[in-house]
Amino acid sequence: MKKLIAALALAFGSAQCVAEQAPKNIILVIGDGMGPVYTTAYRNFKDDRNTPQIENTIFDEMLVGMASTYSYGTQKDHTDNTYVTDSAAAATALSTGVKTYNQAVALNVEDKPLQTLMEYAKSKDKTTGLVVLSQINHATPASFVAHNTYRYNYNQIADNFFDNRVAGKFVADLMLGGGQKYFIREDRNIVEQFKQAGYHYYDNYSQLNSIDKLPALGLFAKKGMSYAIDSNEKYRLRAMVEKALTLLEQSKKGYFLLVEASLIDWCGHANDIACAMNEMDDLAQALELLNQYAKKRQDTLVVATADHNTGGLSLGRDGEYRWYPEKVKQITNSAEYMAQQVMDGAHVLKVWMNSVSLPIKPDQLTGIAEVRQQARAYVKEQKAKLDDPLNAKAIASLESEGVEMIANYITGLLSEVTLTGWTSTGHSGSDVQVFAQGPGAQHFFGHQDNTDIGKQLFKLIK
Amino acid sequence: MKKLIAALALAFGSAQCVAEQAPKNIILVIGDGMGPVYTTAYRNFKDDRNTPQIENTIFDEMLVGMASTYSYGTQKDHTDNTYVTDSAAAATALSTGVKTYNQAVALNVEDKPLQTLMEYAKSKDKTTGLVVLSQINHATPASFVAHNTYRYNYNQIADNFFDNRVAGKFVADLMLGGGQKYFIREDRNIVEQFKQAGYHYYDNYSQLNSIDKLPALGLFAKKGMSYAIDSNEKYRLRAMVEKALTLLEQSKKGYFLLVEASLIDWCGHANDIACAMNEMDDLAQALELLNQYAKKRQDTLVVATADHNTGGLSLGRDGEYRWYPEKVKQITNSAEYMAQQVMDGAHVLKVWMNSVSLPIKPDQLTGIAEVRQQARAYVKEQKAKLDDPLNAKAIASLESEGVEMIANYITGLLSEVTLTGWTSTGHSGSDVQVFAQGPGAQHFFGHQDNTDIGKQLFKLIK
Repeated sequence: MKKLIAALALAFGSAQCVAEQAPKNIILVIGDGMGPVYTTAYRNFKDDRNTPQIENTIFDEMLVGMASTYSYGTQKDHTDNTYVTDSAAAATALSTGVKTYNQAVALNVEDKPLQTLMEYAKSKDKTTGLVVLSQINHATPASFVAHNTYRYNYNQIADNFFDNRVAGKFVADLMLGGGQKYFIREDRNIVEQFKQAGYHYYDNYSQLNSIDKLPALGLFAKKGMSYAIDSNEKYRLRAMVEKALTLLEQSKKGYFLLVEASLIDWCGHANDIACAMNEMDDLAQALELLNQYAKKRQDTLVVATADHNTGGLSLGRDGEYRWYPEKVKQITNSAEYMAQQVMDGAHVLKVWMNSVSLPIKPDQLTGIAEVRQQARAYVKEQKAKLDDPLNAKAIASLESEGVEMIANYITGLLSEVTLTGWTSTGHSGSDVQVFAQGPGAQHFFGHQDNTDIGKQLFKLIK
Repeated sequence: MKKLIAALALAFGSAQCVAEQAPKNIILVIGDGMGPVYTTAYRNFKDDRNTPQIENTIFDEMLVGMASTYSYGTQKDHTDNTYVTDSAAAATALSTGVKTYNQAVALNVEDKPLQTLMEYAKSKDKTTGLVVLSQINHATPASFVAHNTYRYNYNQIADNFFDNRVAGKFVADLMLGGGQKYFIREDRNIVEQFKQAGYHYYDNYSQLNSIDKLPALGLFAKKGMSYAIDSNEKYRLRAMVEKALTLLEQSKKGYFLLVEASLIDWCGHANDIACAMNEMDDLAQALELLNQYAKKRQDTLVVATADHNTGGLSLGRDGEYRWYPEKVKQITNSAEYMAQQVMDGAHVLKVWMNSVSLPIKPDQLTGIAEVRQQARAYVKEQKAKLDDPLNAKAIASLESEGVEMIANYITGLLSEVTLTGWTSTGHSGSDVQVFAQGPGAQHFFGHQDNTDIGKQLFKLIK
């Protein structure tokens, strides 16, 4: 198909051919974990049941193609292709146009640093920015700014955000997301270093509107930001993107902006459908804004995609030809939030009624209470085994395992009642959709590999 | 996106614009149940593991967009949208451009017959044909030729294949697939009627090459044709399509051809990944042929899509970032085939070794043998309960339930060893891909509803 389009473009090639104009600004949007079923689910989730048709979403308006996502798997070459990528290898494919092994952050299979789109944009004197909902040094954004053999080396990667330079310049002029824990540490205060280097720093999301100059660093949470479903602010990605546009568009040379709806993936790992749909809603709002922006300006290319599929999500399960988005709408907190309250001793029925407007059976309530007992017993037993009974990190980790046990039980109930299917708490191998608007969009039509998206964006940065 | 394309097409509108030429011939290809993960799975299945990249498939070359597939669910209006379609409503959307309720064959929600693409083509004096692997009166092909409130009224639908006419003419000039059981019955011999009306009849796939004139009817199996994986002829769809092209292309007014890779869906319902991949392979071969044909002739539009997603297939499961296509390749029979042998008393290990070149553990072998015992006991118990102990239909149905119990156990083992995930033995709600080649292909770019595909094809039949 791409060949056909190329042929058509050639045949039509002329001065008035809008499609061949090079974009001044490029915005790459990644819906982390957003496999193709997520956009169908979201369309159903937003469906007005009073009308016979299911209303289209911004994803439908912007769809242009799909992309394969495989990485080189576990080995540092292609000899153990697992056919399922992790977020680091997938982000590296998008950020550098090169396949690598799972866990690698902008390194090739020989562990050599690969130039990233953001580094390249900076080398072309573009203004650069990233807006994410995870910690800013999480695998996806990290693969645009830093280089590391192991995505979970969060401290090293945070260091690299400051230390990695392009001809002496910082890679990103604007960084909005979470991650205070990694950037303000006992051994190194990177925030302080950024401030001394001229960055304006903000540590609270409520300060978003007051950001008025670049360079700027906004770290609004210790690690990732909270789930939209648990937050009073449902559209933080949209708001941060809007702010980013006003800051970046002042650049004479144009800009490169990375946007990641990071938490779709986290909800997917948790098999929490209501959580995922609320994150999708924030991404949809941000995309709507970007689509309008690109249409209005005509000098800005927006490309959106997912890095991989998470959870093996299906709408309908166990032989039932049915999914219940209207029930998903009745869930107003994440299972993790509910589980934490249950773990902390809250009355189980009260927790449920506060967060889920759906009936619950007595044996299900008893089930939650029983899992709480098991979780508490497990945490107690494991704590007793710790070498250092005061090891705060180990204790926190055990407690979060306990909460996860309860959350898993709750998502089990919610998946059953909404007829939502999951096959994994990890990723699954699946092509993902590609969405685009603006000059250059035609290069993303039809099928492509995720590395093609990266390679094409390199060509479009002028 | 469609608006952008329309705008571009308008801007470029000129005499030499190949894309605006109306196709003389239209071929609609349906991969039944082929949700988006199936094409990723197939690409992986065909991967040459000696090369670092995964080789593209014909699906990649032809991808142009995606389509939503929802129907009106269980009610004859939109008041109980289940968000998951069945094959009849999905086929009706494609064949008529109108949404209807699950189970309906080319009827609207008021049970009024809807004009189908094939009927319309016939009204325009086009030659018409269908090539499928199921019985020809199965939901998908039926929705192009017949009208019924309930897809499982196979006899009524078979009757309708003969009785339904367009200005006195039969709807389909060529019909290739299975279904002898429904067309040659005690109460009515429709095959005989077709023969008397001038149709050439063939009842064995080996006669395919001898078909040289239209009208023609080929029923090559009692119900559906056997699975490719269990057949010596792996590419029957391709072969039947090739034959159909030589017969149909003699038409001066052009033709409309429906092709269905029917059994992908059946393998999906059975959660049998190797079975599904072999059906995909036959479809891929057929599509490759059609793509070359359309490119060469330049007067033929090929549009391919799926009607829905089946089984909630995922590549990777249970937290594992891995799928094993190389293990799927080691499976050379369907689980149903193996289960039938086991049920018939064959030695379990011999059955396994004959069909699966993968190790099996002693407890898994014992497991199969135990399920055989359970299945036999179940069948015996249920037979004893029959009002008429000689009711052949009831006995056959019970015996096939018994075989299914064993097959389910075997697919469970095979899914586990290949890390293939399934959430359902039914359909799941998911957009599907759209593929196209030839004049008019541009009308299927980007997102659309399944009814849009039908509507667009109506416009292109001239």
